Amino acid sequence: MKILIKNVDIVTMNEQNQFYERSNIVIEDNIITHIGDIGDINKNKVDYEIDGSNKLAMPGLINCHTHLGMSLFRNYADDMILSEWLTKKIWPAEAKLIAEDIYWASLLSMSEMIASGTTTFCDMYFFMDQVIKALDISGMRASLARGIVEEDSNSIYKIEENEKLFNEYNDSLNGRIKIMFGPHAPYTCSPEFLLKIMDSASKLNASLHIHLSETRNEVEESFRKYNKSPIKHMYDLGLFDLHTVAAHCVHIDEEDIKLIKEKNVHPVNNPSSNFKLASGFSPVNRMLKEGIKVALGTDGAASNNNLNMFKEISMASIVNKAVDNDPMSVTALEALNMATINGAYALGLEKEIGSLEIGKKADIIILDMDKPHLCPRNNVYSTLAYSAYGSDVDTVIVDGNILMERKEFKTIDIEKVKYMVKVNSMDLLNNR
Amino acid sequence: MKILIKNVDIVTMNEQNQFYERSNIVIEDNIITHIGDIGDINKNKVDYEIDGSNKLAMPGLINCHTHLGMSLFRNYADDMILSEWLTKKIWPAEAKLIAEDIYWASLLSMSEMIASGTTTFCDMYFFMDQVIKALDISGMRASLARGIVEEDSNSIYKIEENEKLFNEYNDSLNGRIKIMFGPHAPYTCSPEFLLKIMDSASKLNASLHIHLSETRNEVEESFRKYNKSPIKHMYDLGLFDLHTVAAHCVHIDEEDIKLIKEKNVHPVNNPSSNFKLASGFSPVNRMLKEGIKVALGTDGAASNNNLNMFKEISMASIVNKAVDNDPMSVTALEALNMATINGAYALGLEKEIGSLEIGKKADIIILDMDKPHLCPRNNVYSTLAYSAYGSDVDTVIVDGNILMERKEFKTIDIEKVKYMVKVNSMDLLNNR
Ligand SMILES: [Zn+2]
Ligand SMILES: [Zn+2]
Repeated sequence: MKILIKNVDIVTMNEQNQFYERSNIVIEDNIITHIGDIGDINKNKVDYEIDGSNKLAMPGLINCHTHLGMSLFRNYADDMILSEWLTKKIWPAEAKLIAEDIYWASLLSMSEMIASGTTTFCDMYFFMDQVIKALDISGMRASLARGIVEEDSNSIYKIEENEKLFNEYNDSLNGRIKIMFGPHAPYTCSPEFLLKIMDSASKLNASLHIHLSETRNEVEESFRKYNKSPIKHMYDLGLFDLHTVAAHCVHIDEEDIKLIKEKNVHPVNNPSSNFKLASGFSPVNRMLKEGIKVALGTDGAASNNNLNMFKEISMASIVNKAVDNDPMSVTALEALNMATINGAYALGLEKEIGSLEIGKKADIIILDMDKPHLCPRNNVYSTLAYSAYGSDVDTVIVDGNILMERKEFKTIDIEKVKYMVKVNSMDLLNNR
Repeated sequence: MKILIKNVDIVTMNEQNQFYERSNIVIEDNIITHIGDIGDINKNKVDYEIDGSNKLAMPGLINCHTHLGMSLFRNYADDMILSEWLTKKIWPAEAKLIAEDIYWASLLSMSEMIASGTTTFCDMYFFMDQVIKALDISGMRASLARGIVEEDSNSIYKIEENEKLFNEYNDSLNGRIKIMFGPHAPYTCSPEFLLKIMDSASKLNASLHIHLSETRNEVEESFRKYNKSPIKHMYDLGLFDLHTVAAHCVHIDEEDIKLIKEKNVHPVNNPSSNFKLASGFSPVNRMLKEGIKVALGTDGAASNNNLNMFKEISMASIVNKAVDNDPMSVTALEALNMATINGAYALGLEKEIGSLEIGKKADIIILDMDKPHLCPRNNVYSTLAYSAYGSDVDTVIVDGNILMERKEFKTIDIEKVKYMVKVNSMDLLNNR
């Protein structure tokens, strides 16, 4: 299959930040094989043409921290104190979740992500076989971890589940799936238990996905219990010797930042979730200035309440300026990097995705730029970071396959998905 | 003309926060004459029906602080220090503006506002006759002030222009236009000059639109010059004896809040602009808890970089929670109030617009709720504040006239407007 996207503006997000005006992209199977003048392309051999007039192509966005299943709890519990939100609403609801819920919630979440320009996500939850079943249908790319909370001595079965998941699915679906290990957090897993997870992960050469330093409370508790920050605690445990995706990193100090940099940990900023839960402001600009490739995520839809990376780009770039009292904090380009190439680094996929370059996988989104709010377009990076919305995404390609074209889903039966989610969430929250 | 919106969910935003599920609204001429069961409506007498299935009707949003002409500078100068932004980019560009620029920029801005659910705006700029010309075409509702900066002793002509504007246009276009007076700020107008403006305004019983306490710098300068805050300075001058819309109110203290409350001043929060310019965080929740009806605005597209009230609702409700370290700060409902009924109070139009009630003007927006990111809808206010986007707006009615239906503009030739804005802004920024 050979696809030509013609006459399109191209934001490559490559190291030189190359921008092409009204140019062309050729995709052969799942690989980008050409970017630039149409001159030497044999148009007869093109199977499918996409007209890029008044449109802009850029790398698909990478959402580095999600819990897809939680979309069932969207707008279910808001404007509440975190502890009440968890204990009175989220945990009791989660205890009633069944496999089918996760399947439909995952398809719904993937629809929302595709519609708003995300092509890859990094998820941690349970019933992960259901997420994989949904991923197979949707055609997205994902790094998936079984969320592991240590409840009692039996909890070891969760590590075994994560191992099984790795052995069965890692690199499957044409390489669209990577399996990670998902120790939930240092406050839900003891050091001994974490060592067991690390042992399993390192035998399989797998990466980790963990929550670190999300709330003030968590950090204070860590100091009380271990006399050190969560970051230092993980550092001393050797956890960072494995490739680690660290969600949040909100309440971190200069010493933590030094350790993150030294061990090449991949922090994931989740601005909307951190703001909405009143967790706080992560020192994103400080980390970027240290050369740390901070990635970006939405967290679950229960705390965001969307899975829209353009919203997060906007939050990260706009709000940090006021937090840092510096209008140059987290520039438009830096925020776009967070949502693309930095995410690829976080998932160890920087050679495959995160920028539009010849030889990379064809994970491409095409935005319709013909909108009042995108006019005039004086600077393309400012336009994308400060003015564009997820709803401007028109067409989405993952691994060379078209998942959405002119806003129409090509792989997901969206009417059925919305219906099944409504039925399941109503049953879950009201009857079970 | 009698319009029936049938089978629609209705968020009234009235004092009792009434919500109707799958109900009906009748509009006769420019007035809402019925909300509720369809029972006794003689359907034969309906001229036009709008099917509200899977849709939600709510009051049109009120954007209480704009500079429409600045949309020409969208994405033109970002990630810069405020003083450089103004002196090197914005002011030199503004000096070259001609009437035609403002006409096309105003139509573009109105297109963006209509498309994202705003029905009324409160604008301060110059060439206001051009804004009025555009308003006549678009069909929106607006409160307009000639922005008055005191440059030298000749500047009095600007006050005369504002007076002329009032005499010619106040209450015109079927009452869709109100004229206010627009003293730019205490740091651009001397006390003597402000007194002249107040004198003109009070003779005509007109309201004021002014910038107050936007930046730390401005407040410090006010203390140096007048030994008091900008708010106290205006209070002592008697400015607040007139109905005053005070944009920003970011750097205000408890004493300022007391004065704002005492004089019934109407603060307008502009979160995106305040964040992006690194101006700071306004104590919105603190004011709301005092019973002050804080309104909401976008400011100009040069500093936002949109004119989308759903973005501001999201920014105000989500970000203030982290600022205040309180997940209950600025609830979903409070943020929606800011964008609707509080805006109506700010413009002195609370008896006419800001909520859907029988007898009020028919300024109604209808959202398409059949989207993955709005599913499931567990709480309607959370859904609107935390999950909905401006792009979910499907149909817009102002003063009983349909300005957009199923996303199609009914009053504006959008292709021509985008073309003319591109031509004019290119000429302005590159050639003049
Ligand atoms: Zn999380
Ligand atoms: Zn302003």
